Amino acid sequence: MRHRTDPHRGQPEPFRWADVPELVYKEHDTTFRGVTRRVLFGAEHGQDVEVRYFEVAPGGWSTLEHHEHTHQVVVLRGSGACLIEDRVIPLQQHDLVFVPAWAWHQFRATGDEPLGFQCIVPLDRDRPVLPDAAEFATLIGDPEIAAFVRR
Amino acid sequence: MRHRTDPHRGQPEPFRWADVPELVYKEHDTTFRGVTRRVLFGAEHGQDVEVRYFEVAPGGWSTLEHHEHTHQVVVLRGSGACLIEDRVIPLQQHDLVFVPAWAWHQFRATGDEPLGFQCIVPLDRDRPVLPDAAEFATLIGDPEIAAFVRR
Repeated sequence: MRHRTDPHRGQPEPFRWADVPELVYKEHDTTFRGVTRRVLFGAEHGQDVEVRYFEVAPGGWSTLEHHEHTHQVVVLRGSGACLIEDRVIPLQQHDLVFVPAWAWHQFRATGDEPLGFQCIVPLDRDRPVLPDAAEFATLIGDPEIAAFVRR
Repeated sequence: MRHRTDPHRGQPEPFRWADVPELVYKEHDTTFRGVTRRVLFGAEHGQDVEVRYFEVAPGGWSTLEHHEHTHQVVVLRGSGACLIEDRVIPLQQHDLVFVPAWAWHQFRATGDEPLGFQCIVPLDRDRPVLPDAAEFATLIGDPEIAAFVRR
């Protein structure tokens, strides 16, 4: 018996998987720079999660946002840093990051290489929310966070 | 506000994460060789899955088994091969593997290095089932599978 879809996704080049298309990170949005998205596992893979691969180009950043659902993150490529709630955390390949519910978060490729990371989310999840002016002011009250965040 | 637990798990050495203990793969079982288990994300991380890291020592293998729940696998370390249902698939670092419901599967570190892989499963899942004599005979009716499987 053969599967309709191949259970194996090899890499014709590193971090580019067979039959896993590159997607836009977000439509109609200017809150990020240099981010692509790929869905590694989705609803058709029999669990209540989606496993995405995001790649942030050197100098780029993901949207500064928060939401009720959590993120379970594994860095797969390169290095960089992230804001999680009130901390700026340096990241290396294969580090783990947990983003709790409603924690502000942003990922940046701070060096000369892309930052690629896997991010697990529930299939059924709420939409991200951006900081309003007051929330942003509170965040950048911390000088380290002020130097880190982009929007 | 600080988290009770650190949202970041760095690696004091490669593929060994801070505060992520090594666990036995399976208790009271002789169906595998040289496999360790670590839980990277669990029930406390707000999703209906558990993310495990298995590491198979050179020459080792995981249990040949099947079950109703699926596996979403990302190879994190080294190389090796796996049986998925009726195919033996060579694996490289960061390859993706999907194990469908009730597909026989086994992972082996076929080279000189460990094979480390992340495996996502539902928190609520059925127990693995081993092949009975007739099922094993059917499997090894394929010479390639016969040469690959261990039990």
